[in-house]
Amino acid sequence: MEIRDQPYTLTSCDFVFTGQQILKNTNIIIDNGRIMEIGPEKEGDIFSCSGMIVIPGLINAHTHSGMTYLRGYKDDLDLIPWLKEIWSIESKALPHWIRLSSEASIIEMLSNGITGFIDMYFNPKDVAELSEIYGIKVSAGPTFLDSLKDPYEIDKEMREVSTMASSTFSPIINVHSLYAVSEETLKLARQLFEELGLGIHIHVSETREELFQVKQRYGIFPVEVLKSKGLLGPRTIMAHLGWISSWEIELVKSMEAHAVHCPTSNMKLATGGFFPLKEMLARGINVALGTDGPATNNTLDIFREMKEAVLLERQGYWEASVGAKDAIRMATLGGRKAVRLEGGVIERGAPADLSLVDMSNLGPITESNLNSILTYVATGRDIDYTIIDGKLVYRRGLYDSRLKQIYAELTTIQESLS
Amino acid sequence: MEIRDQPYTLTSCDFVFTGQQILKNTNIIIDNGRIMEIGPEKEGDIFSCSGMIVIPGLINAHTHSGMTYLRGYKDDLDLIPWLKEIWSIESKALPHWIRLSSEASIIEMLSNGITGFIDMYFNPKDVAELSEIYGIKVSAGPTFLDSLKDPYEIDKEMREVSTMASSTFSPIINVHSLYAVSEETLKLARQLFEELGLGIHIHVSETREELFQVKQRYGIFPVEVLKSKGLLGPRTIMAHLGWISSWEIELVKSMEAHAVHCPTSNMKLATGGFFPLKEMLARGINVALGTDGPATNNTLDIFREMKEAVLLERQGYWEASVGAKDAIRMATLGGRKAVRLEGGVIERGAPADLSLVDMSNLGPITESNLNSILTYVATGRDIDYTIIDGKLVYRRGLYDSRLKQIYAELTTIQESLS
Repeated sequence: MEIRDQPYTLTSCDFVFTGQQILKNTNIIIDNGRIMEIGPEKEGDIFSCSGMIVIPGLINAHTHSGMTYLRGYKDDLDLIPWLKEIWSIESKALPHWIRLSSEASIIEMLSNGITGFIDMYFNPKDVAELSEIYGIKVSAGPTFLDSLKDPYEIDKEMREVSTMASSTFSPIINVHSLYAVSEETLKLARQLFEELGLGIHIHVSETREELFQVKQRYGIFPVEVLKSKGLLGPRTIMAHLGWISSWEIELVKSMEAHAVHCPTSNMKLATGGFFPLKEMLARGINVALGTDGPATNNTLDIFREMKEAVLLERQGYWEASVGAKDAIRMATLGGRKAVRLEGGVIERGAPADLSLVDMSNLGPITESNLNSILTYVATGRDIDYTIIDGKLVYRRGLYDSRLKQIYAELTTIQESLS
Repeated sequence: MEIRDQPYTLTSCDFVFTGQQILKNTNIIIDNGRIMEIGPEKEGDIFSCSGMIVIPGLINAHTHSGMTYLRGYKDDLDLIPWLKEIWSIESKALPHWIRLSSEASIIEMLSNGITGFIDMYFNPKDVAELSEIYGIKVSAGPTFLDSLKDPYEIDKEMREVSTMASSTFSPIINVHSLYAVSEETLKLARQLFEELGLGIHIHVSETREELFQVKQRYGIFPVEVLKSKGLLGPRTIMAHLGWISSWEIELVKSMEAHAVHCPTSNMKLATGGFFPLKEMLARGINVALGTDGPATNNTLDIFREMKEAVLLERQGYWEASVGAKDAIRMATLGGRKAVRLEGGVIERGAPADLSLVDMSNLGPITESNLNSILTYVATGRDIDYTIIDGKLVYRRGLYDSRLKQIYAELTTIQESLS
């Protein structure tokens, strides 16, 4: 079934989770990239969604798309020896490897129902181009990381990338972390942050080691450093926060910054700590979910992150106050708020960014257990279609042969590393 | 492709993980339910495994197959109120609901590459019948649970079930837990255990509350109680063990009993505690993996348990000593040892119980990262075929229409509960 550039209707959706409520057996009329109506009406072409659940498009709020060529490479090392292996390869990686990796990541994410992602890596121009080819929304920019890249080069590249905004691409300032850049680099980042009015995206308090280094250098804690450097505010997106203190949580709240929880990555890399999900949600802090990169998770499946976020919370607290509904909200609305994209809900006027979930391998499904099924049973493999700005950007199988080709190339690349 | 009742060869398997080593581009000759040869030779019919990874058949070592009708029902409650809801329904559930549920579970497990499972529920005769219909290996028996069932009835039923052993069905003695049965019931169980020579399968030290109750009643810890009652030995399979003490670990070791780790269920039900995976493996205790029931996980996917076992371990220990290879071993050989089934490895003479993983959505795959890809990326949805005793019992799509029908019925049932 094709979607033409005119009004059309998703008909007979078994369930629609709007972000607020669950509707049964309803239609969604879409025109000009937006949701026009939800209800019994139809208009234009018909696209049957019988046997499907329609949810707001998923967002992967923290990843490194260019790392697929390293997926599984030297896995199961402890973090520090692993990072050494990875950084030594990254310093000599060819641009071609990274572009192919980003393309694989984009295909995987679309096939997992992901409609947008925040990317931290070194190939933002590739990613901007790929975002237009594949129709996925991306926030990306070059990454300040002093040991690998000259910060003045990054500053220059950032200024170029900042002019590339399009319907799919939003430039963002990436700073690897407080421990991996100098104070001088932070000044460059702040200058860009103020001048360009863009978001800033940074790893914060991922490890205990980081906390120690930051405290040693600045005498204060990481979120406090961000504030003192003028980098904390409603445009700040912080990934990890596993070692954040209670007073820093209050700072995140008062400065209206955003937190990205990456439970699988934190667990797999054995970083210890504990993302204070319950405390953050209780304070109304915006929390999004991220898979982290394909070499640290190793999947790019936000459904699995939804489940993991709940599991980890319960392991820590021995109680069930955070549940499926919170998980879905973080995976949809949370991610959009972080990058200040409208939508993340299914309502009249919202952008038609939708993930269509095939019900055939999920059951039994009722109105009451729908959120639970989506969070604890579904995976990205249950996605049949992904719609972004009203365009059908993915249907099951669409990129199978391209993905096969890329995986073959990446296999050769990874084999050449060892 | 069909498999006839004569020698045949799985040809051109991209990878074979034998349990010990990884072979590339090889063939497996199968005859009379067993592996005859691994290497370049071919014999009989040809079954191409190009694009596939062949691994020893997965085992789900702890589940409650009859609970699919409750999947997602009143989810996200704390454990105690949730159990109350569930037990009140279970006391009035119709046999038909439970049989349908077990059938759905079996189809789901086969489609996830699971070749055998240990079941604790109330419909062992159904399960025995279904195991023959579907060709999956099952260990099951009626369950001692005093508040729901008269133990003398269970004793009687167990004696009937003990005569039903077949090529797919092995009777097992199920005791719900030490806290849910009386001392008198334990005596019945022991009598059966000695008389019938069967395995015994029991929830042990799942919650802190349980520990308290057992300590209060017996003055000693749960594994100690099992020992004192003559129920601990090489035929004992204990699920959960999240609250086991260090001296009980030594008992498990010295008595050669088996542990089943169910990480997702423990986390989702917020039972606290911590399964001492690293300590058990270090002592050479046999550890298997279980999904627990479809109402507590809520999937029946052992690939996801493999990943969760590693993630949870690393969250607890901040180091990466337990990894992908351990996870695969627990999911294959570990489960088989628990029920004293031969196999769990791919070698000459072993039963041909095999899970065939489609590589198309997994990449890049090299000899070095194969275990990592299987553990951290793959899910049951990557299974193309499941072979048990040389028979092709599942190929993708085989039971789609039956499953759809069952899910529809279970939906109606679950809707009628609220």
